Parts: sequence; structure tokens; C-alpha cells
Amino acid sequence: MKILMLGDIVGELGRYTLLKYLAELKTMLSPDLVIVNGENSAANGRGITRTISRELLGAGVDCITLGNHAWAQSEVFDFIESETKVVRPANFPPGTPGRGFATITTSSGKCTVISLMGRTFLQPLECPFRTIDKILQKIPESHYIIVDLHAETTSEKQSLAWYVDGRVSAVIGTHTHVQTADERILPQGTGYLTDVGMVGPYDGVLGMEKDAVIRRFLTQLPVRFEVAKGRCQLNGIFMEFDSQTKKAKKLKRIRIDEDNPLIS
Amino acid sequence: MKILMLGDIVGELGRYTLLKYLAELKTMLSPDLVIVNGENSAANGRGITRTISRELLGAGVDCITLGNHAWAQSEVFDFIESETKVVRPANFPPGTPGRGFATITTSSGKCTVISLMGRTFLQPLECPFRTIDKILQKIPESHYIIVDLHAETTSEKQSLAWYVDGRVSAVIGTHTHVQTADERILPQGTGYLTDVGMVGPYDGVLGMEKDAVIRRFLTQLPVRFEVAKGRCQLNGIFMEFDSQTKKAKKLKRIRIDEDNPLIS
Amino acid sequence: MKILMLGDIVGELGRYTLLKYLAELKTMLSPDLVIVNGENSAANGRGITRTISRELLGAGVDCITLGNHAWAQSEVFDFIESETKVVRPANFPPGTPGRGFATITTSSGKCTVISLMGRTFLQPLECPFRTIDKILQKIPESHYIIVDLHAETTSEKQSLAWYVDGRVSAVIGTHTHVQTADERILPQGTGYLTDVGMVGPYDGVLGMEKDAVIRRFLTQLPVRFEVAKGRCQLNGIFMEFDSQTKKAKKLKRIRIDEDNPLIS
Amino acid sequence: MKILMLGDIVGELGRYTLLKYLAELKTMLSPDLVIVNGENSAANGRGITRTISRELLGAGVDCITLGNHAWAQSEVFDFIESETKVVRPANFPPGTPGRGFATITTSSGKCTVISLMGRTFLQPLECPFRTIDKILQKIPESHYIIVDLHAETTSEKQSLAWYVDGRVSAVIGTHTHVQTADERILPQGTGYLTDVGMVGPYDGVLGMEKDAVIRRFLTQLPVRFEVAKGRCQLNGIFMEFDSQTKKAKKLKRIRIDEDNPLIS
Ligand SMILES: [Fe+2]
Ligand SMILES: [Fe+2]
Ligand SMILES: [Fe+2]
Ligand SMILES: [Fe+2]
Ligand SMILES: [Fe+2]
Ligand SMILES: [Fe+2]
Ligand SMILES: [Fe+2]
Ligand SMILES: [Fe+2]
Repeated sequence: MKILMLGDIVGELGRYTLLKYLAELKTMLSPDLVIVNGENSAANGRGITRTISRELLGAGVDCITLGNHAWAQSEVFDFIESETKVVRPANFPPGTPGRGFATITTSSGKCTVISLMGRTFLQPLECPFRTIDKILQKIPESHYIIVDLHAETTSEKQSLAWYVDGRVSAVIGTHTHVQTADERILPQGTGYLTDVGMVGPYDGVLGMEKDAVIRRFLTQLPVRFEVAKGRCQLNGIFMEFDSQTKKAKKLKRIRIDEDNPLIS
Repeated sequence: MKILMLGDIVGELGRYTLLKYLAELKTMLSPDLVIVNGENSAANGRGITRTISRELLGAGVDCITLGNHAWAQSEVFDFIESETKVVRPANFPPGTPGRGFATITTSSGKCTVISLMGRTFLQPLECPFRTIDKILQKIPESHYIIVDLHAETTSEKQSLAWYVDGRVSAVIGTHTHVQTADERILPQGTGYLTDVGMVGPYDGVLGMEKDAVIRRFLTQLPVRFEVAKGRCQLNGIFMEFDSQTKKAKKLKRIRIDEDNPLIS
Repeated sequence: MKILMLGDIVGELGRYTLLKYLAELKTMLSPDLVIVNGENSAANGRGITRTISRELLGAGVDCITLGNHAWAQSEVFDFIESETKVVRPANFPPGTPGRGFATITTSSGKCTVISLMGRTFLQPLECPFRTIDKILQKIPESHYIIVDLHAETTSEKQSLAWYVDGRVSAVIGTHTHVQTADERILPQGTGYLTDVGMVGPYDGVLGMEKDAVIRRFLTQLPVRFEVAKGRCQLNGIFMEFDSQTKKAKKLKRIRIDEDNPLIS
Repeated sequence: MKILMLGDIVGELGRYTLLKYLAELKTMLSPDLVIVNGENSAANGRGITRTISRELLGAGVDCITLGNHAWAQSEVFDFIESETKVVRPANFPPGTPGRGFATITTSSGKCTVISLMGRTFLQPLECPFRTIDKILQKIPESHYIIVDLHAETTSEKQSLAWYVDGRVSAVIGTHTHVQTADERILPQGTGYLTDVGMVGPYDGVLGMEKDAVIRRFLTQLPVRFEVAKGRCQLNGIFMEFDSQTKKAKKLKRIRIDEDNPLIS
């Protein structure tokens, strides 16, 4: 099983960047499954709309994960129940609309994608450790399992990855919008990367127009943030898993920007 | 000017790892200056002692930066004033012992190393943006300037790097203990990396024994953390700067662990 | 049913203050039940010991509640299971030692005391709203029910009180160590006070020696806090409940200090 | 000097409540000066408009203080410079529009009103301790000095009050919207109250419609908050100061609601 996972798609420029490179990445890598985090894909960089989810899924994405910005566009409540390939963090409280994991059937087997959120410096959701224990009981052994771990701190991300080592195929972090360089296969076979990074503007702050964010830090006054313009970047990870054990065999980070062009 | 900077040295295993590789790295890279972050170098992973600072400086380190754990070993107050190559975050309040920046003379010129802390999810120190503005006014144009930006969030780190782009040689982040993969030279010539990563245990959580950290997340009870044992890792960045402009010419991340051996 | 509840007992001076006034308060008020929050009753103002819990229960206290400092003295794990009148926050994760609520039999009927913690600016425990829903299902209608709501923000405390209005006899807040002046009976009969205040030093900061706390704010450096000395204060609330409905009939705040002497 | 200070005016109902009681309170108490916190006086409970500031000042208010919600209505930037009786927290960074303190001339002398914000669980503004030191150097000894201390935690509020004891006439807290019962005159003569409480709805959560706030706690989803309707409350403090020493002589809390009617 070969899986391509891309980080948080930020705004229209993020969607444009995805479309620009996805076909070529697919040609080069032949992934069986493409996962993207869509929590920032709306025009203002917050949330996702039905149109955008349709656009991403139509462009070759197989599964869309979300995060703390999942609910920023209120229309999400209109389609999150019916859109079976859109996954919101599983540890929102009981009764939350939508699903916390989804199983995608590929020509190389079934893969269950779980979205999970950390709690440190974020909302007090259900315990992510106990939540994933419960979910894993429901997933057949024959599935590959990918966890999008949407969290702020490296501490919580590493802890959860060690906690499920050997029980899932990979734990890939999102939320910080900066790719980390610590990809590894943990001793029991789980692939891990603290953060996969983002897709969108290259010259902003997490994809947002930088002068506004700097002004906010300097003045401590309310400042309206907009998605940055100009040059773009794409960050992701390409993973290969063993068809018998469902464990990780190889992890390859992907970084494309003006300083690091895609070489096919 | 060639500079090697290594991230947070964690515990005795971090110091051992540094000693194990530093000589060979120096042979390979011939840096004019070696900077390490020492905020976790004490035996329990918190703070630094006089003996350890002497040990690091004696082993070939030219400058030690600190961070939020700077004061964890109370004996730091006994030597921070006199130890001219140990730098604590510059934006602690007026009256804080020690210095926020230090100038090191090398055979290739003078380099001023500034330590600065972010405030998001950390203590309410002085504004790091205004603090660095004031410091930069005091530094001669002939100096290279390296900023160790000790901060939690990618947002604050990127914002500050953009803010000083063209005014310093490089901004290199520390504190998360995970190396990021976003090294770049900003448009006005400042080198940037969100986090340089740590030096110490490879199989812990930020260098601490993982079972204890996981237990803390699971139980929410007090748990005593100790530095992990076993395999080690070393993360750093090697930078080259232009002798005329003092701007960055080349950034090369360094990652050494059992999965990524040092190849000389 | 008449209940006297006193807030966080801070250090030895807090225990001394309690002993000094309790007999006289009992004589004046004839409570059927005395509840105190003991999370700060250890000598250093953090946690509780077996000896202290025995001392408090021997001095006329019927039930001891705890809070975020419950676990600060590690010996608490030795007696929290067997000490049936000591209650720790009920929304710690499954598997936490001790009990989250306890039923005390008095000559005027049975009273169940529930300890619950808020999550805003505190640890990410289980949802306090859902936790109390579950607990209330287990308590017979014939019981009086008192909730010690240990939380930081007025918002979370008011919200939870409204949420259980009519389902418990009273919700009394603790943790801020400052008594609030908003005692009231909510429309469905639940008595409410945002915070009952503390018992201990009158001239400290939340009971701790003030110069140290001020120095911590000023320097942002680690400072060792000790329980303040000198004059003392006692804060509490006296409540009367209807024997049929178990609802609140009357709430009377108690404040005793040098400026507000106890007048019998 | 006699001063009446009322806490955060919340929404239209808060303004209505103020108008309803202010004339009678003035008749009863004959204050020389009336201060209100206006940070929540806009229709949606966030910020203040020019029209509302004019309305409050026209209705007999002499000085309006603000807090963390100061900037929620963007039109505030149009009048905060020219409106000399509107005071925003003094420890916003250098360059912030408006003033951090204002001197009001009354028939009983001049009173300087200072607005100051805490930093714990709030934004990283300038140090409030150092900020007030600087302000106090500029104020003539002949002035009465009232500090509106807008902060979240009781710890920071008590610390700052002790810090300025004897140097200002009174420190009165705002922001939590719940009146505390700890009014006192500190040993060096400064009057103190941790929080003065709010003016507005009696049956909400901090003045906002309670079902929405509860739903937010329960679901962790975005919920739109509106100012509550129905019954109202007014909280304040009446203070008398010595004309020679400018120190506090008497503090009397005011609480008016359906359960505590105004008795003239
Ligand atoms: Fe994101
Ligand atoms: Fe996010
Ligand atoms: Fe560190
Ligand atoms: Fe750190
Ligand atoms: Fe307490
Ligand atoms: Fe507490
Ligand atoms: Fe307010
Ligand atoms: Fe406020």
C-alpha cells in the first residue's frame, strides 16, 4: 500500500497549489490513496465548504481530514454527515456531527483514516489516548490505519505515537503548518512524522499574510488576517506499507517550493 | 563565516552525544563558531550548572544559549553574570541577571549571538519584537548576528523571522526539541529554521523517558519525569554566511541517529 | 438540613483558623454537616496528608473535598481509597484512585457531596457536565446533593450551576480563594455561590507569602512560595435546605477576619 | 472624596440598568465621581461605540474604563484619541491609541483613573507592575488615584494591590463579571476589591444568554453568544477617601437585583 498525505491546504492558493502538483505527484509516486487535511481550505483560511470538499475529492483526493478549524464555515454542518470521505477529529464529544474515522477501499486494500486532536493549548476534548483505543477495537486487522494527529505540541504528538506504536500503520501530525524533519519508523513498525506541513503560500505566516500577523504580535490589537498571495509551497509525505503486516516500510517527506522545485 | 548550531542538549545523554560527534563534525565542517542551546543540559533535563557549562565550553562549544528552563538549577545565578559565553533570553524583564546577547570573536570575524523567547503559551516577558529592535541598534554592522529564538508556536517564530529579515544573519528556533524541515534564506538574506531540534535520547518524548510522559497524559496526575536512556540523536544546522553582507549563503540541516548515521 | 461549607484550608495557619472558629460556628449555626475543601491544607499549601485529613475529620469536619492540588502530597495515594469521607474531583479520568462523591449520613438525612473540576485554564479532565449527569443518575432522590465546583473562571462555574439547577441542592465554587458576593437561589431551587473563599492567612496572596508572589510576577523567575504568616481569615457559607424538596431555602455567607470579627 | 464605581456594563440591558438606578444611587450616595467599565457596553456585549460612550457620559458617568474587549468595535479607533474621559488599559504596547489614565476634576478635588490589565490567561501586554510605577511618577500627590484592574486571576489582582498599597487610593478589579466579597482597606490605606461585578442581565452567564454558553461547553463547537434578556442586576462599590491622605476611609459594596432590591 502506497499513501500520499498532504498537510493543511490553506485558502484558494493552497487548493491551486494542490491541483498544480497532484497529477505529477501521482504519476511519479503511484499512490493507492491520497489524504489531505482540509481544515484551512476555505477562502479565508478557516474551515471548509461543500463546494471545496467536492472540488478536492474530484481532483484526486481520496480522504479529507480536519482539525480545530473544522467548524469555522457553518455550512459544514450541512454536509459533514453525508460526506463519507470527510473526517473530523474523533475525540469531539459524543453527539458531534460527522465521523471521526473513515475506511477507504483501494485496489491495494482497505485503509482506515482516523482524525484525532491533541488537547494541550487546544480545546478540552475527550482524551485522545482513550479515544484511539476504542476506535482501534472496531477496525479489522486487515486494514491499514493512518492517524492524522492534529495537535500543537511535539510532546503530545510523540507521546501518542509511542502509545499506538505497532497498532497503526502511521501517525502523521498536522496543525503547525511547518513540516518537521523527524520521519521515522518506530520500533514496533508505526511510521511517524511530527508534522507534515502545509500546502499554500510560501511567503506568509502559516499561510496568512505576514504583515497582518506581525502587526497583531506588535500591537496586541485585533487584526483581520487574510490568506497570503504570491509564491506557493506544498508539503507532504509519501509512505509505503507492508501488505502483510500493514506496518511502515518507507517514509519519504515531500517539500516543493521555489527553493526546492519538484524534480520528476 | 561558518557556524554550527545544535539544539537543546538534554541531560547527561545529550552531553555524551555532543562529545561523541562534535570532533568529527568539526573536522568535516570546519565551523568558525559552535553554538548549542544548554537549557536542558542538567542531569534531570532542566537547567544548567556551572560544571556543565564549563564542560560544554571546554569541549569546543563557543557559546551556550538558554530558554524557559534557564533558571531551573538555582546555581545558575552564581555564574550567569561572570560566564560571558552563556546567554539567557534577552527579553526577560529589566534587572534579570546575565546577558541577553554576547559577541564571540572568531578568526573569520565577530558574531553576536542573541537569545530571545516567544510569549505564546509561555511567560509574559518583554515584547520580543521590540527587544530585538533595541539590541540591533547596539550591534556594529560588521558583526554576524545569530538569533536563537526559543518559542513554542510556528506562528510566532515565522513572524519574528520575517520581522528581522535582512537585519540579522540567521534566526534559528529552539524549544520544541523536534527539527523542522523548512530551512530557507528569506528574501532579504536572513537564514531561517523554525526549530533546530535536540541532542540526546532518540527514544523518549522530547528526551524524557516516554512511559512517564504518556502516563501523565493518561492520568492527569503528577508524574516525575527523567531523561530517557538508550539510543541517541543529534540535531543541528550548519550555516555559511557571506563575509561582505553577513547574510546567509547556505543552510544545511544535520540529523544524526541510528536511522540516519553520520557519514563523513 | 443545615450545611456549613468552608473553602480551601491553606497550610497550618488555615487549620489553626478552622479549629479556632469551628466550635463557635457550630454552636451558633447547628449545622448537620460540615464540608471543607482540603486541597491546600498541607504545610506548604499544596495537597493533604493522612494526618491532616484525620485531624480535620476529628475536629468536626464531616467531609473533605479536594481540587487540582489533590495529588501534591504523594502519600495521598496511600489513603484516598480507604478514607471514605475524602472526595477528589469526579471528572479525573477512569482509573483514578479515590472517589468523586461520597454520601454522608446525618441526623437530618443523607447528603451526597460531589467534587467536580472545571477545565478552563486547568487540566483537560473529563467533561464536568457529562460527568455530573452520570453521577446524578446514581443518587437516590432522597439525598441532598452538594457540588464543590473547583474551577478558575466565573463563566464555567455559572454555566454548570445553571445546567444542574433543580437537580442538586447547591453548587458552591472553590479554587480562587476569594469569596464572591453573588450567593443566590436559582429559579429551580439550586443554591449557588461562585466561590466560597479560603481559610488561612489574611495578608497573603491566596494564602501564600505575598512578597514571593509579587517577586515572581516582577521577575518571571522561579520563586519558592510559602504559606503566609500573621493574621487569619475564614470564609464559608451556611445553607439551609427544605426537607421535602431538598432545594435551597437560605444561603448566608460567612466572612471572619480582623476587619470582620465573628459576632456571636 | 466620594466615588461610585460600577463594573462591566453588558449590552443594551446593562445600559438600561445603569440608567434605571444611577439617578437614585446619586441621590442616596452623593458621589463626587462616577466610574463605569464600558468594555462590554456595545449591543453584542463586546466593545463600545462612540454613541454609547456619549450616552454613558451624558447620563452622569464621569469616566469610562475599558479592558480586553476595548477594541472589539472597530469604530473605537475613531474616538478613543479625542474622548478624554475614556481610558483603555495603560499597559498596551507603546503606540496604542488612546490614554491609559485620565484625570477628572471634581468639586472635591482631582482624581486620576488608571486602567490596567493583568496578563495571566490574557494577552502578553507590558508588565502591569512596572507600568503603574511609571504612571505614578507622573501623578501629583494631590490627586486621588483609582485603579481599574482588569484581570482574570485573583492571584495577579491581589499581588498588584499589595504592590501599590499606600501609593493609590483604591484598586478595584473588573473582568470576571462577578462581585467578590473581600473589600478591605490594606494596611497602608489603599482600598481593595478583587472584582466589582457587572451591570446587566441577572440570568445569563456573565451577562450572555446562558443556553448558548452551556452549549459551547458541551459541544466544543462554535456558538454565537448574545446578551441575555430579562431580569437585571447592578454591581458596584461606593468609596470614601480622606481629603488629606487620599487614602480609603470606607468601602461599601452595592448589589442590586431582584433578590436584593435597592432600598433607599
Ligand atoms: Fe491548519
Ligand atoms: Fe489546526
Ligand atoms: Fe528545551
Ligand atoms: Fe524550552
Ligand atoms: Fe485552593
Ligand atoms: Fe485549586
Ligand atoms: Fe467584561
Ligand atoms: Fe474583560
